[in-house]
Amino acid sequence: MLGDRTLRLQHGNRIEALCVLGTHISADVYGAAPAGAVSFGVKHTEGVSVEVACRGQAEVESAPSSRMQWPLDEGTVLRISMSQASTEVNDNKVTVSFYAEGGQPINQAGVFLTGIGISLDVDADRDGVVEKNNPNKASWTWGLEGHGAILLVSCDKESPFTPASDCDDERVFSKEDLLDMSRMVLRTKGPQRLPQGYEIVLYIPVFDADKVGVFYVQNPFFGQRYVHVLGRRKLYHTVQYTGGAAELDFFVEGLCFPDDTFSGLVSIHVSLLETLAEGIPHTPIFTDTVVFRVAPWIMTPNTLAPVNVFVCSMKDNYLFIKEIKNLVNKAGCELKACFGYINRGDRWMQDEIEFGYTHAPHKSFPVVLDSPRDGGLEQFPIKELLGPDFGYVIREPLFEAITSLDSFGNLEVSPPVTVAGKEYPLGRILIGSSFPTAAGRRMTRVVRDFLYAQQVQAPVELYSDWLSVGHVDEFVTFVPTSDAKRFRMLMASPAACYKLFREKQKEGQGEATMFKGYLGTDTKRVTINKVLSNDNLVQQNQYVQRCIDWNRDVLKKELGLTEEDIVDLPALFKLDKQGKAVPYFPNMVTMIILAKDLGIPKPFGPVMGGECCLERQTRSLLEPLGLRCCFLEEVASYHGRLGEVRCGMNVQRQPFAFKWWHVTP
Amino acid sequence: MLGDRTLRLQHGNRIEALCVLGTHISADVYGAAPAGAVSFGVKHTEGVSVEVACRGQAEVESAPSSRMQWPLDEGTVLRISMSQASTEVNDNKVTVSFYAEGGQPINQAGVFLTGIGISLDVDADRDGVVEKNNPNKASWTWGLEGHGAILLVSCDKESPFTPASDCDDERVFSKEDLLDMSRMVLRTKGPQRLPQGYEIVLYIPVFDADKVGVFYVQNPFFGQRYVHVLGRRKLYHTVQYTGGAAELDFFVEGLCFPDDTFSGLVSIHVSLLETLAEGIPHTPIFTDTVVFRVAPWIMTPNTLAPVNVFVCSMKDNYLFIKEIKNLVNKAGCELKACFGYINRGDRWMQDEIEFGYTHAPHKSFPVVLDSPRDGGLEQFPIKELLGPDFGYVIREPLFEAITSLDSFGNLEVSPPVTVAGKEYPLGRILIGSSFPTAAGRRMTRVVRDFLYAQQVQAPVELYSDWLSVGHVDEFVTFVPTSDAKRFRMLMASPAACYKLFREKQKEGQGEATMFKGYLGTDTKRVTINKVLSNDNLVQQNQYVQRCIDWNRDVLKKELGLTEEDIVDLPALFKLDKQGKAVPYFPNMVTMIILAKDLGIPKPFGPVMGGECCLERQTRSLLEPLGLRCCFLEEVASYHGRLGEVRCGMNVQRQPFAFKWWHVTP
Repeated sequence: MLGDRTLRLQHGNRIEALCVLGTHISADVYGAAPAGAVSFGVKHTEGVSVEVACRGQAEVESAPSSRMQWPLDEGTVLRISMSQASTEVNDNKVTVSFYAEGGQPINQAGVFLTGIGISLDVDADRDGVVEKNNPNKASWTWGLEGHGAILLVSCDKESPFTPASDCDDERVFSKEDLLDMSRMVLRTKGPQRLPQGYEIVLYIPVFDADKVGVFYVQNPFFGQRYVHVLGRRKLYHTVQYTGGAAELDFFVEGLCFPDDTFSGLVSIHVSLLETLAEGIPHTPIFTDTVVFRVAPWIMTPNTLAPVNVFVCSMKDNYLFIKEIKNLVNKAGCELKACFGYINRGDRWMQDEIEFGYTHAPHKSFPVVLDSPRDGGLEQFPIKELLGPDFGYVIREPLFEAITSLDSFGNLEVSPPVTVAGKEYPLGRILIGSSFPTAAGRRMTRVVRDFLYAQQVQAPVELYSDWLSVGHVDEFVTFVPTSDAKRFRMLMASPAACYKLFREKQKEGQGEATMFKGYLGTDTKRVTINKVLSNDNLVQQNQYVQRCIDWNRDVLKKELGLTEEDIVDLPALFKLDKQGKAVPYFPNMVTMIILAKDLGIPKPFGPVMGGECCLERQTRSLLEPLGLRCCFLEEVASYHGRLGEVRCGMNVQRQPFAFKWWHVTP
Repeated sequence: MLGDRTLRLQHGNRIEALCVLGTHISADVYGAAPAGAVSFGVKHTEGVSVEVACRGQAEVESAPSSRMQWPLDEGTVLRISMSQASTEVNDNKVTVSFYAEGGQPINQAGVFLTGIGISLDVDADRDGVVEKNNPNKASWTWGLEGHGAILLVSCDKESPFTPASDCDDERVFSKEDLLDMSRMVLRTKGPQRLPQGYEIVLYIPVFDADKVGVFYVQNPFFGQRYVHVLGRRKLYHTVQYTGGAAELDFFVEGLCFPDDTFSGLVSIHVSLLETLAEGIPHTPIFTDTVVFRVAPWIMTPNTLAPVNVFVCSMKDNYLFIKEIKNLVNKAGCELKACFGYINRGDRWMQDEIEFGYTHAPHKSFPVVLDSPRDGGLEQFPIKELLGPDFGYVIREPLFEAITSLDSFGNLEVSPPVTVAGKEYPLGRILIGSSFPTAAGRRMTRVVRDFLYAQQVQAPVELYSDWLSVGHVDEFVTFVPTSDAKRFRMLMASPAACYKLFREKQKEGQGEATMFKGYLGTDTKRVTINKVLSNDNLVQQNQYVQRCIDWNRDVLKKELGLTEEDIVDLPALFKLDKQGKAVPYFPNMVTMIILAKDLGIPKPFGPVMGGECCLERQTRSLLEPLGLRCCFLEEVASYHGRLGEVRCGMNVQRQPFAFKWWHVTP
């Protein structure tokens, strides 16, 4: 960390010093010389190497017992170093003899040296193993060629007895707890004991104290004990020095994810302290540093394989859940129902939480992000999800009011994309927002700051405030495909709907009726002709189409997409009294995606030949891509309440195989 | 900002659209086609250029009245653009004709186009002049080859009537006020009036609202008026469109300096909004963006030429001020006394404030940073310094307690240095701190964050907590030299003092007495022999030397210095009951530097042959460098109160000639 360390020699004096292997001690010969001295000679033991550096000249190695005499010039310094740890205190020495004009000796200055090896080690090369004194351990870089150790936030909960997650607790109850942590080793080598007045301390900067915790494993006779040595209220820890070659094992945990005031980097130092005498304070004479980055929270796009599907069991959705069960079985994942005692009448599973995960070379586990929205489901993530190797994190504003844009139907992530040469191997986060021109609704700042701070899924802000509910999943989603592109972006499209209806009208189907068997409020008979002749509806949907097109243009640019990557699904909207848009019929884009199986809101479109032309159109667009469409009746239980299939469900997915530290943000 | 803008053509329909010069409109031909169409043709007016882009093929320019027929494939789009602004609304058009099998025409789709030029312009090339539509105006980069416009924080106060500085005020009282601001021009070109339903708005992101202010200059018959159009509580402003070629002048001011939560970058947007009909919300169809960086606050090292020297006039320092006056006259700058009614018994001018400046291509002025320390001088910077072209800024902690390390004797800046190839053309800020191991005193976080956030003088944290007062200026300072290196670093050095005393002892001067005529508390006779035989003092100063050497080693590394760049001035310290160091005799390194003239605390060292050997030694070290030493008697008025010459004074200096935006942080 430091350059050469300055040591003050003094003629007529023998001082003692520790020399840490790999460092240099520089001693000013001129300053130490007695009056009248014009030259000097150097003698030293084998274990020491000494260079003589005269001002403005290259250093010259001096042999242990050389008789060479050097001219005594101002600025002449000795650079002393040792390559072997001492077995006894003061087992090496350097002696400087000063000579007067004519060469008669005047006086001497000397230093007894004790060589000691100190190195704080971590897994800086990210292979899951702690290597020895990695030259890169004190810095952190991104990318395939990058280096630097990684910490997990122990936001899971190994023990059922602890109140909250492990990082809120300074106790370790089990070996499992340690498995989440990163190993750190302090290696020391030297004599049986340190000379009088020296000690070794491990410490963290004051501003990292609430971001990292360090544990030490003791082995007394009665089984292991885990001692919390660094963290909140513990800025430093004096290390027990055990002579010879020793390795002390420490375990490090992250306490919080990166955020707008926390880059994610934390550093831990070890210093060798020296004191001259009782009552005189310490001074550090050597410091070694390691740097960790706290692993980010990562979102999982629709295109990743589903693991668990969560849905709330309500009084009115028994049939719906039966349909979902079939779908989930087909997709080969598991359905987890959330019952009344825990959902407390709140059915919007999509809006309460977002599933993600965190990942380090030594371990990975899922982490749920809890939204500031607090409906009846408030307790669900903590009571049902948080547990062993299942983490929990939440961001809530202190003062700001919450809006519908804070629900996580308004938080999505794209599949991996490449944009004008720049790769996003973990995709990009999509957040619904409002035009800056309008003083409209936005997702609350603390959540946006949190998402930006994770860095590896650079967010894109879209415009969703034109919708009454205001969620991005009302106009865009992504489905997996088996072709080269790997995915398609689906968008709600009034234009596509009008185009379809006009064609059907031309084909003489103008009187085909919508909403057959629809249990919503709308009761009068609605035909294609009626829809097309409703100028007000036409105009409102032209406006909606422009809002969607704005997002479409932004997404094309920010995700590097072309027209071929986009599928426009027919949709219609109407404006409410506030001029905000709500779906006119169940909004198919707000579907649930389980690998190749899609659970799509049944649109109740115009029926012709016993078939809904909207369903038919959708099939014809998606089935060629190898997807299976299943249309779910959800009007009563979801659509009628301004939500759709997707809003009532949530999917925990497989993490990316790609390692986030290989990203270059 | 956006890529192509999507426009929805529709067969059997003629729509109208605005086309902003330099942008593209892309229209999906396939989506607009009637049933049965298999091919299409395009006709357009001269003012429009149209490209036909078929899926996966290069675009083909289509001649205005070409008879060419294109196959109608999915994904075929027209890319429409205009190079000339329209003189009348809808004076251009594009017509698409659709043909059935065999080539008979079925139907048409058309769009009437109005070309309009919109560009928001700033001085992105930093030559003091606003250029036209600079391609780099929306981004900001550092360095000689960098680009991006610059804002000043109008933290000065042009008018005596305003309560605080100009940036706390949304009114502009005089042309002078505008001279601090950066000019921004909105250029528009088009027909006499915009078509129905369009408007142009200027706006800022919500999180920039408290960081930037924009004014517009009106010219009614009764002289000019300055209208505040954007800033706090004003997120957007609808621009008056005046036909033909128009230039609207705006003036932009920064409201706060960069800080830990503010990078310094602000953006301003202009959007062209479109609305379809009454009651239907707007959608933006074009946005242009400019980016400014708020100029940082910059410190001035001792090596810059002095302009004004400030000192407090106290009951007890009449003679001292007389001496200072001579020194200041020699140096050719001005002495400004701060009298009792304003200093209210507080003499520590160095600790209350730090002088600096801010700089943009169009303007530069001094800015004083007010320390959180509030003694009697609290009112001085606002009452005596803040004014026309003299800025003021303060950072104070909300809750944290203030310590002596928050005084600005603990805040210094080095001369320009180059460290291992990296250049710091404005030097590096030096902050006194404590070892992280000890729960010691540090400068309060808000001030440190502010200093780091300025970016152009990357701070170095030193260790000053070992001192009772705890200021870096107690052990290090910098003096200008006329040689290649341009400066030397002076450090307090007990080792140098002991070396000198031992030599004098050898020369038989051991009985020479210190503190002759010294008015401090110490009364018993002190000789060189007494000092050298005081083992306790020796040990304490060995400790002090190690603390100084720690800083010396850090400074050598962080400022890229060698032994030749450092001058060790003799000094002695003693430890108080808390184990903190205080000077044993007046501390010469805490001097005031006015170009070549140094005002040095008179050390009252051992007198031999009528001369103080400490003064003599100091002269012999500094005068060969072309510096003039003047030793000032200051025991009663400063040293006796744990301060020295420098602590009682402050110097406003010339700014750097170097432009900060040429730095690469």
